[in-house]
Amino acid sequence: MPYGFLGKIIRINLTDSMVKIEKPGEAFYRAYMGGKGFITYYLLKELPAGINPLGPENKIIFATGILTGVPIPAMPRFAVGAKSPLTGGYGQSEAGGYWGPELKRAGYDGIVIEGKSPKPVYINIKDDDIQIRDASHIWGKDTGEAQDLIRAELGDDKVRIAQIGPGGENLVRYACILNELKHANGRNGLGAVMGSKNLKAIAVRGTKDIPFADGDKIKEIRKKCLDIYMEYPLSRSLYELGTSGLVKAINAGGILPTKNFKYGEFEGADKISGETIAQTILKRREGCYACPIRCKRAVQIEREDFRVDINYGGPEYETVVAFGSLCEIADMEVIAKANEMCNRYGIDTISTGSSIAFAMECYENGILTKEDLDGIELTFGNSDAVLKLIEKIAKREGIGNLLADGTARAAQKIGKGSEKYSMNVKGQELAMHDPRGKVGIGMGYALSETGADHMVVPHDTLLAQEGIVVDSVAPLGITEPLDPLDLSWKKVRMFVYLQQWWSFLNMAGVCDFGPAPRGCIPVMDVVNLVRATTGWDTSLWELMKAGERTINMARIYNLREGLTAEDDILPERLFEPLLNGRLKGTAIPKDEFYEAISIYYSMMGWNDKGVPSKGKLLELNLEYCI
Amino acid sequence: MPYGFLGKIIRINLTDSMVKIEKPGEAFYRAYMGGKGFITYYLLKELPAGINPLGPENKIIFATGILTGVPIPAMPRFAVGAKSPLTGGYGQSEAGGYWGPELKRAGYDGIVIEGKSPKPVYINIKDDDIQIRDASHIWGKDTGEAQDLIRAELGDDKVRIAQIGPGGENLVRYACILNELKHANGRNGLGAVMGSKNLKAIAVRGTKDIPFADGDKIKEIRKKCLDIYMEYPLSRSLYELGTSGLVKAINAGGILPTKNFKYGEFEGADKISGETIAQTILKRREGCYACPIRCKRAVQIEREDFRVDINYGGPEYETVVAFGSLCEIADMEVIAKANEMCNRYGIDTISTGSSIAFAMECYENGILTKEDLDGIELTFGNSDAVLKLIEKIAKREGIGNLLADGTARAAQKIGKGSEKYSMNVKGQELAMHDPRGKVGIGMGYALSETGADHMVVPHDTLLAQEGIVVDSVAPLGITEPLDPLDLSWKKVRMFVYLQQWWSFLNMAGVCDFGPAPRGCIPVMDVVNLVRATTGWDTSLWELMKAGERTINMARIYNLREGLTAEDDILPERLFEPLLNGRLKGTAIPKDEFYEAISIYYSMMGWNDKGVPSKGKLLELNLEYCI
Repeated sequence: MPYGFLGKIIRINLTDSMVKIEKPGEAFYRAYMGGKGFITYYLLKELPAGINPLGPENKIIFATGILTGVPIPAMPRFAVGAKSPLTGGYGQSEAGGYWGPELKRAGYDGIVIEGKSPKPVYINIKDDDIQIRDASHIWGKDTGEAQDLIRAELGDDKVRIAQIGPGGENLVRYACILNELKHANGRNGLGAVMGSKNLKAIAVRGTKDIPFADGDKIKEIRKKCLDIYMEYPLSRSLYELGTSGLVKAINAGGILPTKNFKYGEFEGADKISGETIAQTILKRREGCYACPIRCKRAVQIEREDFRVDINYGGPEYETVVAFGSLCEIADMEVIAKANEMCNRYGIDTISTGSSIAFAMECYENGILTKEDLDGIELTFGNSDAVLKLIEKIAKREGIGNLLADGTARAAQKIGKGSEKYSMNVKGQELAMHDPRGKVGIGMGYALSETGADHMVVPHDTLLAQEGIVVDSVAPLGITEPLDPLDLSWKKVRMFVYLQQWWSFLNMAGVCDFGPAPRGCIPVMDVVNLVRATTGWDTSLWELMKAGERTINMARIYNLREGLTAEDDILPERLFEPLLNGRLKGTAIPKDEFYEAISIYYSMMGWNDKGVPSKGKLLELNLEYCI
Repeated sequence: MPYGFLGKIIRINLTDSMVKIEKPGEAFYRAYMGGKGFITYYLLKELPAGINPLGPENKIIFATGILTGVPIPAMPRFAVGAKSPLTGGYGQSEAGGYWGPELKRAGYDGIVIEGKSPKPVYINIKDDDIQIRDASHIWGKDTGEAQDLIRAELGDDKVRIAQIGPGGENLVRYACILNELKHANGRNGLGAVMGSKNLKAIAVRGTKDIPFADGDKIKEIRKKCLDIYMEYPLSRSLYELGTSGLVKAINAGGILPTKNFKYGEFEGADKISGETIAQTILKRREGCYACPIRCKRAVQIEREDFRVDINYGGPEYETVVAFGSLCEIADMEVIAKANEMCNRYGIDTISTGSSIAFAMECYENGILTKEDLDGIELTFGNSDAVLKLIEKIAKREGIGNLLADGTARAAQKIGKGSEKYSMNVKGQELAMHDPRGKVGIGMGYALSETGADHMVVPHDTLLAQEGIVVDSVAPLGITEPLDPLDLSWKKVRMFVYLQQWWSFLNMAGVCDFGPAPRGCIPVMDVVNLVRATTGWDTSLWELMKAGERTINMARIYNLREGLTAEDDILPERLFEPLLNGRLKGTAIPKDEFYEAISIYYSMMGWNDKGVPSKGKLLELNLEYCI
């Protein structure tokens, strides 16, 4: 068994409460490496085609990565995957915090959960002791209460709990999984998959050491990383202002998603900035395992008429924009409350905010009436309405029941031209980045296997900076910075290489704020870290190929489930000009964009329908995917 | 300018004696890296399609590699390239010795020679002083005399001379280029290209230091290499017995090319073995720049009736077999003489031996008569006839004139079914490895851009050894040893990855006896060496991509010159069973073989006609090749 891994995967069948420990062997680890690699493997190998994502045939996989738990900044993450109830295709979402390293310390690389429990349960893992416990008394509780109850019941207030809230129980199609109440596997509705299985939570406590091949080398890299990490401007900014530190710059750049992506500049941007958080509601900085950045915010409001509980963390950039400019809310307290509510109910802030903005635009255009909206005056900027809708969505009450299925399904039911206000790809709502000012992110939205997802490649704006490109991604074969609006084959090439790198980082359990090009850990130090952790004589070549492998596997999974090249598209609005701000008048040129997608297929060794060639699959050692 | 390179390329137009120094800039070096990379670049960019390889429009490029001259074992090599007069396609051949490092020490990474001199000339390069000198008095001289004359004329008996002999002057289509009389750029007829330009030789003397980015790191890797190098079984064997140390094992394996590839076992094998050389005619071991292996033999025979001059080195494995078992000659003295004559005349020993064996089989089958053969009784095993034919070929006398065009052209002229005795691919004669016992070498023959060439991937027999595969090529993503006769997609995948690695090693100026998997220098130490030499933040990913880039460039060049998928074939004889030896009855399964070629195309991102896709070319940054 390679170092760095534990060599054990837990398999739990909830239908018959069967718990097994599987030992997949080194070839499995070397080919799939963790995270997305594990998930694609299990979904392709074990799920029949065409199953109902919310039925007992679906499986949900919790997968740590090759570097999860290595005591180096930015390596705390794990991924959860299943067939997505939101997209109907490959579903995956990652989270930071402490839960992933804790699972490894308990002695496991991942958990495969199948079947459906006849009654609500939670799983408790304490080293070699794995229990399926009754959760009837916890079911229906919000996440905070549930965490308190489980910790009390287990008599351990340090146990790490990944759980769903009422949103997941109610099968909201974008329900999330939260650990420590604030680190979210946010997207793709994986919380609903847990809910469909009557699985409330997975509590983990581990006391073992993760074995590393070369601890001295890890220490050496750790020291180097710590030396440079807090000097790096992005790290400093993340520490000072959190991810919302980006709001003002993005607004100045003219691409802050505003009023459901109609605009790129929001006049209330300053009020929803990281600076505003820091100056008002911030109580402390928080972070993840072994990471000094502490980019997470913990905010608190204790007014009698308006409380925000500090235990639910604070809003990230995505949340700030989804409930802020997207809904034209210029009030950080309301956003903080929306964030707290989403974490309490266990629903994804991005899709929730986007669903509300969609409904607002429908209302503005007379497509939804006040009657349809349970009497709510759903105008852009109406804070009370936003908070009410969050609750309705989580509880699937009234209009919330419609919106809980996501904007694509809602628009289909509503009709009347509402489709054009649904900002989704493959059924998943866009993240809070407007690709009209960074077209590579648009390619990422269109091509991500999980539907619109901003975690596919680093932002074009970053990659336009000569210093960052030349100094950091040269090992990837990228040595030329490119304009954020460049849509030439050069951008596609940059996209292809970075997508493989980011795909590997995902498999590794690494946060994108760590390694270059977004972070400052040199690419080759990540490679050296994998070598030191696993003891493998590995290279960037092998790691990039592993990244490429999982991209192809997820693609094959989606093709099998009926998602084709026709789904690699963007909402029409993005081909229409921005209506204000620095990029006023700018749209993504449609023909060029789809030409770029077509070049992407060709670069990937896929045919013009986006289907991987036999040769490409064989080259990636994926004979079983043909 | 990156370290390791000098940043200067000499361009000489022989038509008007114009000498220029070009400074291509770092992007050129990073994309093309040297050797095959430089050559493919110049041929594609500067040669019009369809030119006569022996006309003044052809150019000949002398290219050092990224590591040429780094003081580490096995890094002395340089490549010469042009449109090949033998294949009509991409022409290239590499040599070791000291000439390549000397060119770098003179301050240059390569030389591009164009046009045609009105009279015989040679080029003399001494650091910044570059002269085109009259060679009328040297023209027609054999290589030994020419070297003496040039050294005397320059007053420098250490000057390194790469030159052609009478074979090149006479435009033998497989004339070679020799440095120090014994290190041959043997294949593809590049000596004829020099001859067609009236260029006899390039003498080089350099006194500068090659700048390295991190000399300490190079020293550290050097020490490590030296520590392991002479302990490695292959290195020891090469030192003791030279490349002919392989004869007995290959014969025992049943794949020693015998009687023009009709047989795989030669009863006289012991007499033509490396052991026999060591016990009889070996005078000393020689080698290349900075390399302790000293795998080169210097042999000598001083009998009055039979002399072999020690200055011409000694026969390599390829030469031993081409004049030995292939012609059924079991006499090492004759082989040594044949080697000396080929080096004296400047013709390729592989194609010369193969051309003679071809004529022998034609004679045996009554297709060529004694009359056709200038009265020579050209039976297999006739030593005198072999030596006579070498002279006739070099001088283009009688039957030699026909055979000097290579067996493919000769068979075309002869007709009468002689084609089946021409063991060629794309017009170039097979090297002395029978792919019926190592099918990957057959793929290499069929797919090499230079025609039948054994320097495309390491031998299947090596890659069947678990220790070697698992321990050494893991960074390339290859972790499973495969049977030498395996022709499945797994073998194709191994082939694709190793071809890219070997293509890079070629670009680097590295001998395949150095790095893994054939040598013992770990793959990742080669990567570290490129980093230490150039100062680039590079990776195995980038180096493999560079290898892939040049494979695609050479492919595009060949397609442009009319070599297509229909030329990616093997001689029919290889699909017929071996007639004796351990593999008696074994043939390459034809359908499986061409299916493997077809999978290769698909893995490469080429269409079923072997044409690289637009996406693949763009991915490799080769927009100008579309």
